Amino acid sequence: MNNFTYYIPTRIHFGKGMISHLSEITQKNILLVYGGGSIKRNGIYDAALKELSGHEIFELPGVEPNPRIETVRKGVQICQDNQIEAVLAIGGGSSIDCAKVIAAAAVYEGDAWDLVMDNDKIQSALPIYVVLTMAATGSEMDNVGVISDMDLQIKKGVHSDHIFPTMSILDPTYTYTLPKRQTAAGTADIMSHTFENYFTNVEGAYLQARFAEGLLKTLIHYGPIAIKDPTNYDARANLMWCSSNAINGLLKKGAEVKWCVHGMEHQLSAVYDVTHGEGLAILTPVWMEYILDQKVDAFATYGINVWNIDAKKDKRTIAKEAIEKTKHFLFNELGCPRTLREVGITDEKNFKAMAEKAVCKGSFVDLSVEDIIEIYRRAL
Amino acid sequence: MNNFTYYIPTRIHFGKGMISHLSEITQKNILLVYGGGSIKRNGIYDAALKELSGHEIFELPGVEPNPRIETVRKGVQICQDNQIEAVLAIGGGSSIDCAKVIAAAAVYEGDAWDLVMDNDKIQSALPIYVVLTMAATGSEMDNVGVISDMDLQIKKGVHSDHIFPTMSILDPTYTYTLPKRQTAAGTADIMSHTFENYFTNVEGAYLQARFAEGLLKTLIHYGPIAIKDPTNYDARANLMWCSSNAINGLLKKGAEVKWCVHGMEHQLSAVYDVTHGEGLAILTPVWMEYILDQKVDAFATYGINVWNIDAKKDKRTIAKEAIEKTKHFLFNELGCPRTLREVGITDEKNFKAMAEKAVCKGSFVDLSVEDIIEIYRRAL
Repeated sequence: MNNFTYYIPTRIHFGKGMISHLSEITQKNILLVYGGGSIKRNGIYDAALKELSGHEIFELPGVEPNPRIETVRKGVQICQDNQIEAVLAIGGGSSIDCAKVIAAAAVYEGDAWDLVMDNDKIQSALPIYVVLTMAATGSEMDNVGVISDMDLQIKKGVHSDHIFPTMSILDPTYTYTLPKRQTAAGTADIMSHTFENYFTNVEGAYLQARFAEGLLKTLIHYGPIAIKDPTNYDARANLMWCSSNAINGLLKKGAEVKWCVHGMEHQLSAVYDVTHGEGLAILTPVWMEYILDQKVDAFATYGINVWNIDAKKDKRTIAKEAIEKTKHFLFNELGCPRTLREVGITDEKNFKAMAEKAVCKGSFVDLSVEDIIEIYRRAL
Repeated sequence: MNNFTYYIPTRIHFGKGMISHLSEITQKNILLVYGGGSIKRNGIYDAALKELSGHEIFELPGVEPNPRIETVRKGVQICQDNQIEAVLAIGGGSSIDCAKVIAAAAVYEGDAWDLVMDNDKIQSALPIYVVLTMAATGSEMDNVGVISDMDLQIKKGVHSDHIFPTMSILDPTYTYTLPKRQTAAGTADIMSHTFENYFTNVEGAYLQARFAEGLLKTLIHYGPIAIKDPTNYDARANLMWCSSNAINGLLKKGAEVKWCVHGMEHQLSAVYDVTHGEGLAILTPVWMEYILDQKVDAFATYGINVWNIDAKKDKRTIAKEAIEKTKHFLFNELGCPRTLREVGITDEKNFKAMAEKAVCKGSFVDLSVEDIIEIYRRAL
C-alpha cells in the first residue's frame, strides 16, 4: 500500500428533506450556479430559495454539460461586482465544478484560466455549497473541478483542497426526474471512477480493492432498478452515495494510479462535446479487451469477486466473461451507447491529435499514442 | 437507507515515516498523553519529540487500557496549570480516548465527568493530535472517547464533533512490535465494529453492507498474517486502515442500529477490566448463535459474501457454517480467548447487575436482561 493523506472536510447531509440544512449557511450574498431549467420544473430551485430567504441571491444559470471557462469568468464577474461571499451549486458535476472554480477565481487577482492551468495558484476560495441533483461525478465530495476551453480544445481537472465543498446536500429524491439516459450515463461514470481506482498496480491495497468491489456490486444491483423504476428510493440513494464514495479518495488513496480511460474520454468531450459518462461507457470495455492479455489475473479477480463467476474456471475464461458481463451491463441493462458512431463521431480524423494529448503513463497498463488511436478505432 | 450526516474533518497521514507531519503542529504548549513505556522502547516517543523540538511538551503517562476518569482529571489539571494549547495522544484507543476527553474538559468549567454523562455540555475542545500505535478502536478517526469510572462501575462513550482529532498519523510500522495477543484483540475489536454495523435492520443500506463485507474479508485475510509475520507491512497497513474505516461512519451512516455486543462487553470491562477486544471475541459468536434463528437470512448472506460458502446450500446450513468459521477465525487463527473463564471470570454473581445495564433496544435483535444473562452464561 502507498503512503497517503486522506482528508475530506465536506459535511454531507444525505437523505430526503435534507435541503433544510441550507438554512445553516451564514454568508449573506450568495451566487447560485446551475445549468438548465430542470431545477425550476422539479421544484428544487424553489425549495432552495425558501431555505435561503433573508440571503441575497445572485444567479448564474446556463452552465454547460462540460462547463466552459467563459462561464466561469461570467460567474467571477458577478462575484466581484456584488461582494459575493459564498457560491451555491444546484445540479450535477458540471454546475458543481463550475462553482468550485468560480469560488477560487473570485478571490484571485488574475484570470480564472491561470488557476486551471496551474492549480498551485489557488490559495483560497469562497465557501462552496452544493445541492446535488445527479449521481455521477462525485464532485459533491471531492477537491476537483473539470473545466473546458473549447477554443483551445482543452478539458482539464483543477485540484485543490481549497475547493472542497463546505456542505453538500444529497437528497436522492432529487434524481427521480432524471431522464433514463442521464441515469445511465451517471452510473457508467461512477463505474468508470471505480474501475480506474480498482485496476491498479499498487500491491497490498487490499481493503481499497474490496471496497471497490462492494461499490461495483451496488451499481450493478441498483443501476438497472433506477432505470426501470426511477422513483425507487433505495436505488437512487445507493447510486448517489456510490457517486461520492467512488471518487472521494476511499478507493484511490494508497492505491494511486494514473487514470487512462478518463484521459481518453476527456478528449472526446473536449473535441466532440460527448456526454462524459457515455464516452466512458463506450471506451471502458474496449480498453479492457485491449489490455486483457497483460492483466488476466486482475480481470479474473474482478470476475470472481464482482460477477460471482466460478473461480474454478480457467482465469482467461473468467476474465473474458467478466468483460462480456460488463458490456452487457453497460449497453443492455443501462442502455448506454456502444460505439463512438452512436454519439456522432464518424471518422478518425482527430484521433491522432486526441491520442497525443491522452498518452497515459504510470498507469495500470501504459498507453502510447498508437495504443490510444487503436482503442478509439475499435470503439468507432 | 436512513437519512444521515457524514462528516470527518480529521486529516489522516497514512504510511511509513508520516510522523514528520507532526512538525506542522502550530500550537506551542502540548500535553503528550500515552500509556506504558512501550513507545519509549520502540522509538516512537523519541521520533515524535524530534518533530516537536521548539514546542514545550508536558506529559501524562500511564493511561490505563480502559482509561479512568481520574486520569482525565489529572490531564485537565496539567492543561490548566500550563496553558496547554493542544493535546497529542501517542498510543491506541485508550490514550486517544483519554486525550479527547481531556481536550474537551480542559476548556470546560466544571468536572470532566459531567461531560461524560452529558455530551451536550461539550461546546469546544483543544486541538487533538494522534500518533496511532495499535489498530483497533478507530478512535483516530472518529468523534468518540470511552471513559470508565471503576468506582461507579460505569464505562461510557463520549460523543461530540468537537473531539474529532485534527490530524492523525497512521504509520503501520508502529504496530510491528505489538504482542500477538494485542494484535489479535485489536483485530477482534475491528471485526466487532464491523459486525455491529453490518447486522442491521435498516433496509436498502446496500452499499454500506458491501463495504462491511470488504472490510471483513480484509481482516480475515490479513489478521492471521500479522499474527504470524508481525513485520508484514501490507498486513499491518490493511489492519490499521480497517480500524479507522470500521467505525468512522462509512459502515454505519444510513444503516444505524443500536450496538448490543459492545454494550454487553462494556460491562465486562467496567466490572472485570477485561481487554475490550477479547471480551468482544468471546461474546460475538455466542451472540450470533443466540439470535441465529431470528436472522437466518442475514447470517446466510454473511456466509456467502464473506466466507464464500456455496449459495446453493440450505440457508440455515450456510448461516451456521458462517458462525463456525467466525469462531475458528477468532479462536484458532487469531488465538483470542474463547470463554469468560479464560479471562478470569469464574462465576455468575455479577451477571444480573451487568445485564441490567446492557439491555439493548432498537437493535438488530433486541436483548432483554434475561437474554443477556443467558449470553453471559453461555460465554462462561
